[in-house]
Amino acid sequence: MTRPTVVRVAVNQHPRSGESIVKFLCRMQIQFPESMSAEEVAQKQAQEKEYSQGLQEAGELEAIYRVVGQYANVSIFEVESNQRLHEILSGFPMYPYMTIETTPLCQHPNSIR
Amino acid sequence: MTRPTVVRVAVNQHPRSGESIVKFLCRMQIQFPESMSAEEVAQKQAQEKEYSQGLQEAGELEAIYRVVGQYANVSIFEVESNQRLHEILSGFPMYPYMTIETTPLCQHPNSIR
Amino acid sequence: MTRPTVVRVAVNQHPRSGESIVKFLCRMQIQFPESMSAEEVAQKQAQEKEYSQGLQEAGELEAIYRVVGQYANVSIFEVESNQRLHEILSGFPMYPYMTIETTPLCQHPNSIR
Amino acid sequence: MTRPTVVRVAVNQHPRSGESIVKFLCRMQIQFPESMSAEEVAQKQAQEKEYSQGLQEAGELEAIYRVVGQYANVSIFEVESNQRLHEILSGFPMYPYMTIETTPLCQHPNSIR
Amino acid sequence: MTRPTVVRVAVNQHPRSGESIVKFLCRMQIQFPESMSAEEVAQKQAQEKEYSQGLQEAGELEAIYRVVGQYANVSIFEVESNQRLHEILSGFPMYPYMTIETTPLCQHPNSIR
Amino acid sequence: MTRPTVVRVAVNQHPRSGESIVKFLCRMQIQFPESMSAEEVAQKQAQEKEYSQGLQEAGELEAIYRVVGQYANVSIFEVESNQRLHEILSGFPMYPYMTIETTPLCQHPNSIR
Amino acid sequence: MTRPTVVRVAVNQHPRSGESIVKFLCRMQIQFPESMSAEEVAQKQAQEKEYSQGLQEAGELEAIYRVVGQYANVSIFEVESNQRLHEILSGFPMYPYMTIETTPLCQHPNSIR
Amino acid sequence: MTRPTVVRVAVNQHPRSGESIVKFLCRMQIQFPESMSAEEVAQKQAQEKEYSQGLQEAGELEAIYRVVGQYANVSIFEVESNQRLHEILSGFPMYPYMTIETTPLCQHPNSIR
Amino acid sequence: MTRPTVVRVAVNQHPRSGESIVKFLCRMQIQFPESMSAEEVAQKQAQEKEYSQGLQEAGELEAIYRVVGQYANVSIFEVESNQRLHEILSGFPMYPYMTIETTPLCQHPNSIR
Amino acid sequence: MTRPTVVRVAVNQHPRSGESIVKFLCRMQIQFPESMSAEEVAQKQAQEKEYSQGLQEAGELEAIYRVVGQYANVSIFEVESNQRLHEILSGFPMYPYMTIETTPLCQHPNSIR
Repeated sequence: MTRPTVVRVAVNQHPRSGESIVKFLCRMQIQFPESMSAEEVAQKQAQEKEYSQGLQEAGELEAIYRVVGQYANVSIFEVESNQRLHEILSGFPMYPYMTIETTPLCQHPNSIR
Repeated sequence: MTRPTVVRVAVNQHPRSGESIVKFLCRMQIQFPESMSAEEVAQKQAQEKEYSQGLQEAGELEAIYRVVGQYANVSIFEVESNQRLHEILSGFPMYPYMTIETTPLCQHPNSIR
Repeated sequence: MTRPTVVRVAVNQHPRSGESIVKFLCRMQIQFPESMSAEEVAQKQAQEKEYSQGLQEAGELEAIYRVVGQYANVSIFEVESNQRLHEILSGFPMYPYMTIETTPLCQHPNSIR
Repeated sequence: MTRPTVVRVAVNQHPRSGESIVKFLCRMQIQFPESMSAEEVAQKQAQEKEYSQGLQEAGELEAIYRVVGQYANVSIFEVESNQRLHEILSGFPMYPYMTIETTPLCQHPNSIR
Repeated sequence: MTRPTVVRVAVNQHPRSGESIVKFLCRMQIQFPESMSAEEVAQKQAQEKEYSQGLQEAGELEAIYRVVGQYANVSIFEVESNQRLHEILSGFPMYPYMTIETTPLCQHPNSIR
Repeated sequence: MTRPTVVRVAVNQHPRSGESIVKFLCRMQIQFPESMSAEEVAQKQAQEKEYSQGLQEAGELEAIYRVVGQYANVSIFEVESNQRLHEILSGFPMYPYMTIETTPLCQHPNSIR
Repeated sequence: MTRPTVVRVAVNQHPRSGESIVKFLCRMQIQFPESMSAEEVAQKQAQEKEYSQGLQEAGELEAIYRVVGQYANVSIFEVESNQRLHEILSGFPMYPYMTIETTPLCQHPNSIR
Repeated sequence: MTRPTVVRVAVNQHPRSGESIVKFLCRMQIQFPESMSAEEVAQKQAQEKEYSQGLQEAGELEAIYRVVGQYANVSIFEVESNQRLHEILSGFPMYPYMTIETTPLCQHPNSIR
Repeated sequence: MTRPTVVRVAVNQHPRSGESIVKFLCRMQIQFPESMSAEEVAQKQAQEKEYSQGLQEAGELEAIYRVVGQYANVSIFEVESNQRLHEILSGFPMYPYMTIETTPLCQHPNSIR
Repeated sequence: MTRPTVVRVAVNQHPRSGESIVKFLCRMQIQFPESMSAEEVAQKQAQEKEYSQGLQEAGELEAIYRVVGQYANVSIFEVESNQRLHEILSGFPMYPYMTIETTPLCQHPNSIR
């Protein structure tokens, strides 16, 4: 149960801040209520774009993809803690209409990165 | 998207090391292969006990409960990163016989702790 | 089928009252109806906080965590009976909007507590 | 959050011992490994019968039914704690071959008993 | 394929009427529509209590329990036929709001009753 | 809650014996263990055919169909009690290799029979 | 891959028309929307009865049973093609409120019919 | 309930034989037992190829696709009856190792074929 | 890991454009909201027919079938990329009311086409 | 249904080869048979590492992560066709022991890449 601290810190070293980081795969499925107007949908989408791009520029949202044939995305998050991930997810403008699946990730031994 | 860093660090502050921490609920279900002898089972259980108690003493395994009527436990982990959690879980002597469900947790606004 | 009564009573001894206790893990997922106003939601949340903190102070709600990315919590209850657990759960102000999964727990042989 | 202690104690009063009780519905499905001989099966069944009838006579196993078309039973347990229920379930001679679902029960307001 | 008629009749003999009987476990989950007023709910509950207690007094509803943390019950029915069970279930005042799971039961060889 | 006994008895009247009857849909899926020889399989199939046809001739197995593309059947049973249905199902020569789903049926108001 | 045409035609020979036939088990579950009035429900039920009985008289709906405790039926259809089955199912007055599971059936080798 | 026979026959008209046809989507997943040697697997694959191509040449297996990342295929069958489909499926050399899902299809109103 | 480029290009060669192609099986289930009028439904269906037939004429929608007893289809798409498939699926007039399952396909070694 | 070809080609343009590409998320879960020796496992792991790193260097396996607490990975593939993805997946040395879930991805409108 002795732990190789040096290796671990290297792996979890955030390139920008020096804080330790955690990585997650999230699948976010959107379902708007029937009563929501096209204008409200468009407004939510604009807010969502701005929020999402801010997270990408800050390096916390590493990648986001559309799932083919679904109003859904899969995203890779790289954040300093679980607490921060919850802040990010619950801050999405479409959060009240999302079903989110969260998978904790870590370094794969075969990864070359 | 400005983040209240002070509050967040306080929440994630590990009482022993000052490193940031992440909390997880894990449900670990054991299923030994039919071919395993009673002696091997007893040996695994002894190793498991030692490993588990080491983690508890180190503060990384905060609590462990038996699920009634199951060869299974639910455990609360408090670790410095996802990487460390995977090291811990894959290090359990019974890991090859476990099915593990992992739920990332964070501070609840109604918690008094 | 002889039972080691002394051990069992020790395990189930409630630290405050001397009554026997039972422990449960509950996962409570909230889903408000679309028609509920922001004011009603805020009011429910305030009531919920007060109710939850009362249970924590009384020692019946041992711990409560937010599930990351979900309007959900996982909680550890320590109560004198199943009957009391149902009273507690059905008394939550948000109970009508909750889906609850209940897992009965007991002492794990590897626990150091 | 004041609790009507008198009513609650009455409900949970065990008719034999005065200790508080908890009630559970368990569904126990049996699956023997292919390698088990007919003699071993018969021996397990004899042990199971004795164990089960001891629990019924002690009042802890209130009722047991066969599920039609299944090697399975549904049983009503009435025990003093979760800990005791786990002792009972894990003590069944067929326990290693069982899949058990456990549902905590309590008094129904419409029950006349 | 010869059948021990005497044993079978004994098992299925209804203690009150001499008709053959069938036993079922039912799990009934209630979900009222959002639009139903508190008055309508209270009225349904009063009707339900009367209907349920009539069945218990008639010996057709042997036992009813609340599932902890659910607006649900588990019930043991003892009736003369499947047809009668459907009449009973579809006659519950809350039937339109119920999801019912039905498990056919019979005598367990280990039962002492 | 008064019951129209005459109608009910008529519905449940068994054409051969005068005893009340219950009807069930069963789906029986067969999965032989890998170790079973072709001879054993053929023997089980011959036994199964004889047993099944005896039940059909006795009127207890009203109909049996092959599910297309599956080693499975759907069958309609008409028996005097749940107890008898369990005797029949557990008596099938292939019973140890079956997974059985059981659906209790009754008279449909739109049926012309 | 040579096919015994004579046997096959005999099996699929419709007793009334000489056309080849296909057999299906359908489970049809009804869920009316909350907004539907009791009058509309009664009207749908009357139309459904007439439609269902016409199919039975024409020999295409061989049998229909109520599932105990469900607003659902299981039905055996015997039709000339998949196309005809879809015409029949989509023609039910309650079709918009149905969830239908369809299982293709064929002759079972143990059937005596 | 009058049926436009002419249209229906046209739809179900088999281009080769004049018999009525039924169409099915099948998903066939293969799982060989661990004990099967590479030679046996290769032999099964050769037999499977010959059988499959015979069905394609006969026009009964209209199309077969590999599912990406699975030892599985999706196939479109066009056969004269359910009975014939079962003969075909149960005749596959790999049938004992297959899990098959069967979806009955018919003409789509938007199809241009 | 050397790849037989010539074979692969041949397989993926689109007959019309020379671009590489990908094939998918999609199952599209429709569920209109209760509030949608019969006129709106009819309008959607007309738009859907036109859109669907345009895709078929362009060769991107290779085949479309009705699932028997469902407001659903299974379709085979042949497109130049995942991006194009998402454009097509999200462009369906009924897309907001669809649940889509997408299965990536490729050449099966036993296919004769 | 006119398609903006220029935009689409840009999105699908592979940075190395000019061929169009498709992106997939794969979750690969490993389950070795009980009979496999530690040496065979180690050999498979060495082969897997070499194969995986070759794919990463070739740019077809964009990223690979360990799922915490699982013998599983999530991987992002970027390949020229479905056919190529199947070649890659079925070529993994551990492929016979994998359960693979495949999710087709495309460009997300909020992505800044």
